[in-house]
Amino acid sequence: MSPPEGVTRLVISCPDRPGIVAAVSRFLFEEGANVISLDQFSSDPLDAGTFFLRMEFILPPERSDGLPERFGLAVAERWHMTWRMWSAERPKRIAVLLSREDHCLQELLWRWRRHELSGEIVLVASNHPDHREAVEGYGLIYHHVPVTKEGGKARSEARLLELLSGQCDLVVLARYMQILSGEFLERVAVPVINIHHSFLPAFVGAEPYRQAKERGVKLIGATAHYVTPELDGGPIIEQDVIRIGHDHDIPTLARLGADIERTVLARAVRWHCEDRVLRHGNQTVVF
Amino acid sequence: MSPPEGVTRLVISCPDRPGIVAAVSRFLFEEGANVISLDQFSSDPLDAGTFFLRMEFILPPERSDGLPERFGLAVAERWHMTWRMWSAERPKRIAVLLSREDHCLQELLWRWRRHELSGEIVLVASNHPDHREAVEGYGLIYHHVPVTKEGGKARSEARLLELLSGQCDLVVLARYMQILSGEFLERVAVPVINIHHSFLPAFVGAEPYRQAKERGVKLIGATAHYVTPELDGGPIIEQDVIRIGHDHDIPTLARLGADIERTVLARAVRWHCEDRVLRHGNQTVVF
Amino acid sequence: MSPPEGVTRLVISCPDRPGIVAAVSRFLFEEGANVISLDQFSSDPLDAGTFFLRMEFILPPERSDGLPERFGLAVAERWHMTWRMWSAERPKRIAVLLSREDHCLQELLWRWRRHELSGEIVLVASNHPDHREAVEGYGLIYHHVPVTKEGGKARSEARLLELLSGQCDLVVLARYMQILSGEFLERVAVPVINIHHSFLPAFVGAEPYRQAKERGVKLIGATAHYVTPELDGGPIIEQDVIRIGHDHDIPTLARLGADIERTVLARAVRWHCEDRVLRHGNQTVVF
Amino acid sequence: MSPPEGVTRLVISCPDRPGIVAAVSRFLFEEGANVISLDQFSSDPLDAGTFFLRMEFILPPERSDGLPERFGLAVAERWHMTWRMWSAERPKRIAVLLSREDHCLQELLWRWRRHELSGEIVLVASNHPDHREAVEGYGLIYHHVPVTKEGGKARSEARLLELLSGQCDLVVLARYMQILSGEFLERVAVPVINIHHSFLPAFVGAEPYRQAKERGVKLIGATAHYVTPELDGGPIIEQDVIRIGHDHDIPTLARLGADIERTVLARAVRWHCEDRVLRHGNQTVVF
Repeated sequence: MSPPEGVTRLVISCPDRPGIVAAVSRFLFEEGANVISLDQFSSDPLDAGTFFLRMEFILPPERSDGLPERFGLAVAERWHMTWRMWSAERPKRIAVLLSREDHCLQELLWRWRRHELSGEIVLVASNHPDHREAVEGYGLIYHHVPVTKEGGKARSEARLLELLSGQCDLVVLARYMQILSGEFLERVAVPVINIHHSFLPAFVGAEPYRQAKERGVKLIGATAHYVTPELDGGPIIEQDVIRIGHDHDIPTLARLGADIERTVLARAVRWHCEDRVLRHGNQTVVF
Repeated sequence: MSPPEGVTRLVISCPDRPGIVAAVSRFLFEEGANVISLDQFSSDPLDAGTFFLRMEFILPPERSDGLPERFGLAVAERWHMTWRMWSAERPKRIAVLLSREDHCLQELLWRWRRHELSGEIVLVASNHPDHREAVEGYGLIYHHVPVTKEGGKARSEARLLELLSGQCDLVVLARYMQILSGEFLERVAVPVINIHHSFLPAFVGAEPYRQAKERGVKLIGATAHYVTPELDGGPIIEQDVIRIGHDHDIPTLARLGADIERTVLARAVRWHCEDRVLRHGNQTVVF
Repeated sequence: MSPPEGVTRLVISCPDRPGIVAAVSRFLFEEGANVISLDQFSSDPLDAGTFFLRMEFILPPERSDGLPERFGLAVAERWHMTWRMWSAERPKRIAVLLSREDHCLQELLWRWRRHELSGEIVLVASNHPDHREAVEGYGLIYHHVPVTKEGGKARSEARLLELLSGQCDLVVLARYMQILSGEFLERVAVPVINIHHSFLPAFVGAEPYRQAKERGVKLIGATAHYVTPELDGGPIIEQDVIRIGHDHDIPTLARLGADIERTVLARAVRWHCEDRVLRHGNQTVVF
Repeated sequence: MSPPEGVTRLVISCPDRPGIVAAVSRFLFEEGANVISLDQFSSDPLDAGTFFLRMEFILPPERSDGLPERFGLAVAERWHMTWRMWSAERPKRIAVLLSREDHCLQELLWRWRRHELSGEIVLVASNHPDHREAVEGYGLIYHHVPVTKEGGKARSEARLLELLSGQCDLVVLARYMQILSGEFLERVAVPVINIHHSFLPAFVGAEPYRQAKERGVKLIGATAHYVTPELDGGPIIEQDVIRIGHDHDIPTLARLGADIERTVLARAVRWHCEDRVLRHGNQTVVF
């Protein structure tokens, strides 16, 4: 359901114990909040699991001042919660990185303009110069950050960090074909979502459509996941597949797969921007 | 997730107001209950919608006595709740009615034996004599209740009511090709689930696969719904579809469709038995 | 598989009799053609059905002159064939009509630029002025053809006929919300494909997402079909669906449905442009 | 479409050259055959690919004598064809092997009784004694072939070879949890189809549902493939997937996955029995 105005989201994970929902919902009720959605999950309700909670609520304007402080004191500390609040009126700022293929970028730009992304694209960067015109047509600045022979990846990553630091809440790799270093991931200090053009963990690495053709699979897929130092190994947010036939060659797989890639990436970005995705070890909880 | 032992389910619908979750979860916390799942939905969180809630919790055995009475007094009355509690240890008793086609019956029997139905089949009745052996092979009594020329539907329905009254919590029409009267539905006094072999509201009535072929659709489907006096018009619980081609004739549609029918019906019965399906006018909320 | 260069397509329907494939393939072999694909279907192989055939072949350039004439004389006449040949090097010219919603137009433009449409968009017309900038950005002329109070539909259709006559091989209604008259359909003299935002024959007519919400269906869909004088009643080319939940309001259905609409329409247009869709009464054969 | 009576199937693979379809269809036409379906595929129509063909035809009874000999002489030899003919009236004889889990066996038995398998189950063997009653209820003999500590796999395989040799046209591993040796595969001398409970090549080997849970995938699947000496590495016939959530534990994955396993295996067996599956290196062509 489209969120009404003035919504705040509360996202919690903590050790599971009886009474958490009672404590949180009582706190919000006494603050005068109107809870409009609540999702919860316990990884093991009977034996010391982890508890995950996402709530959306609307607060009377006169009560919102200092709410996080009061919640921290009255509830979060007592229940050992990892938590955050986020106002839906402050959309997440998204930086998009890509290489030559632009179908995922186009999908994100298109949905952004239709207000379907629940976030704001603020910056596009690429190691190729090709997409300047399309990006500038959306009123965005296009940063060409090549990976040159001399400077190589180190210089390119340094330049990207300059551009991204403090400027975005999320980095989206929309078919960015460079492997980012662990140091970069640490220093960029915001989540990074990648779209991989296979149904992971099948076909990790380069040329997944070629690998798929050679293995003779009957479905191809795409996977949106958080990036970790392990290549194509981070927590999966969303996946989908499409049926293929023996009469599809590799370019046809790439064409059909592109449709799944853009759908899957758009869903993952939207869900992330709506604070629906919680990490749970190397897995995700998606509310 | 498979339910642990000793689970009680609480299902509520009531006018939406701030504080419901706080009130219910506080009550349960003070009763010593361990809440293991909670789903909620409001049909309109901002303007006098209806609120729906489903909780699963485990109660210390010494506290379960009189819990419904205490809940009714302390919570339900104050919030004008329509509600019920159901112990997961008391599986719903299911009566299955069918005519000639037995694929849906077979699916239900098969899942029942594998403990995948969350309910107990207690009775099978048919207007055809054909399925006696299969049913008795599962240790069940098979009731042949023909629709004869003299007595007609009235006599058949009277006989069914004798068999069903007080003996079951749910009636499943697993391709039962007789239309039940409004009077029967009222007197049987438990929910009745039907499987219709089309993607409703397309192809209401007889021979939906022939209708589908003639219209030239590219997908065929099946619909599980609660039965109401309006033919094929009751609240939909679950639907699914399968792709077909121009080279599929009507018997092939029936063969492919049978797979969707049994999947969809099995899901609907399971969800109903787990108290996941709440009626909302002529729609359903499925948690 | 992506078509190689120099491909000609042959599409046939005729009364089914033994020997058709032998006759056609022998003719092509003797002409020196290299057949690269062959699909056939008989609506009733045993009893006077209709036979449908689609072949792709490559001809030595020196032999292509007069091929249709020779085929007509040697094969088509003898077997009472309805047939046509079409060179894949002559992409179909597409005119797109739309009203306010532009997601289907955007999808078609986007795929056209990526050479994924197997046709050329040559013209866009709308009864709204809104999409001029987007269309002109693709180097196309945008025709604003309003439906005014005085002139009404008649004047608008006359203006459209002026624009379309002889200028296109296919008209695509990409969410064009005016009902075209039977006279228009006859005079435009090329196939017209419409995208309807429901899983037809469910929810014919206006506001199908509202109808879907009210009926409480669990899947919503879209249907691409050839337009005939009967509203939403023409031969279906392609359909697809997406799962929805009780927590989706009508605007959310419209957002999720838009993704299915653009996918389904793009597939139908591509298949039509590749001569894969043959009419069979009010049904289609899709090779 | 359900096959009419008296159908013969012809399956061919050979080096691709112009004229194959003309030669085959002319031969059949002159034999008086009525071709009722034809599918063809070339792995590379422009450059020395492999050509695959499947035809179904009906022959006047007086002409069927000696047809394979005439075809071999007149057509197959000249075009260097690997080919076979198979009368649809001679259903393939199927041997089913399984271990403890019986959902795939049940599905095959159920479809066999409904004439949906296009083959005849003639024998069931298991390394567990559990399924005797169910199998004998279908009028089949149940062979218990344990894998004991002394004799081990060698003795078990020897016993299976005694049972299977010359008795079946297809072996189906319906969740048979023993790895068959290369020697066994060679000596059994008929195709062996296995169902693997993952979307291969993801999660090769043991406990794929545990692996899937640990990797946090959002879809689980099943794969039917021909068995080769490489574990889970043979040519894939069919695959499908189902969506899962973070709230599904491993037993739930196994329950949901079982539905996909039985669907996928049943399709693969049916297609194989209808001679629709042609091997192409380590891939398959499925007509």
